[in-house]
Amino acid sequence: MSDRAAWLRSLVRDIPDYPVEGVLFRDITPLLAEPGALKAATDLLAEPFAGQTVDRVVGIEARGFIFGAPLADALGTGFVPIRKPGKLPGPVVSQVYELEYGTDEMQVQADAIEPGMHVVIADDVLATGGTLAAAGALVEQCGGTVVGHALLIELTALGGRAKLDAPLYSVIEY
Amino acid sequence: MSDRAAWLRSLVRDIPDYPVEGVLFRDITPLLAEPGALKAATDLLAEPFAGQTVDRVVGIEARGFIFGAPLADALGTGFVPIRKPGKLPGPVVSQVYELEYGTDEMQVQADAIEPGMHVVIADDVLATGGTLAAAGALVEQCGGTVVGHALLIELTALGGRAKLDAPLYSVIEY
Repeated sequence: MSDRAAWLRSLVRDIPDYPVEGVLFRDITPLLAEPGALKAATDLLAEPFAGQTVDRVVGIEARGFIFGAPLADALGTGFVPIRKPGKLPGPVVSQVYELEYGTDEMQVQADAIEPGMHVVIADDVLATGGTLAAAGALVEQCGGTVVGHALLIELTALGGRAKLDAPLYSVIEY
Repeated sequence: MSDRAAWLRSLVRDIPDYPVEGVLFRDITPLLAEPGALKAATDLLAEPFAGQTVDRVVGIEARGFIFGAPLADALGTGFVPIRKPGKLPGPVVSQVYELEYGTDEMQVQADAIEPGMHVVIADDVLATGGTLAAAGALVEQCGGTVVGHALLIELTALGGRAKLDAPLYSVIEY
């Protein structure tokens, strides 16, 4: 792990028993509050894609916006928000995905990702991988190709990486 | 209006009758998808605060994250998310505010804004000003001072500016 990644990791706060008992929540808000940390995270998230064609970075509502938008800028490309149902105007493409209990749905504007586009998916934390896999399916529904996943944090014990076809790059691993 | 602001304005898409009939929705997603536009917007949002003390930029969930996080970085300071209830771990401070029908609530972590801090509030669109005024009240509950509001778009006909005590800077006006 690089010095910058170690610094970023030191800024993540552990919150036991959140959101439910037995879960150790990795709270990124102290990192966000630290001057220069978002810039350092963005640089590290961008590194794996240097020299690659990236046409869009998508970010998953809501915390994926915090990392996805600056990453798009760092890669010299545009940002596309993936949102909860009913939040995006105009025609949308939808993807239903499973949660621990029940299902949820995410949407992207139908014209936001054009066929053949190379897309990076950004989010803050990879846990079980269900959300990220659904975002990938959404990109593919639009005819795009997922060239990689850019994550601040990977919770390796949950095995989410196995759900993803495209490469996963995470700055901090637990 | 500067050339850059005019360019950004040309990237906003008008969607009639969204989310309800009679409302003209200003859709910022084409702007976000345009390479370099978020950077230009961030530069313009940062300009009014050059030379001022800014200790934190807060962004209002969810689209406020897209502009607030890069703005914090541009101002060399940290970012604080204001979120919907139940999304932030640890002790929080809450603010209830009125919607057209009913009320909503927003929260910030209790230790995210310290007494005496100079805070900029960022969001994408100023409409009636209710959300922004509530965010300001939340900052003041924490002992912070709102030094300004940084908005991509101001819908002037709705008069939201009158609800705000601190200065409002918007890149695009309608």
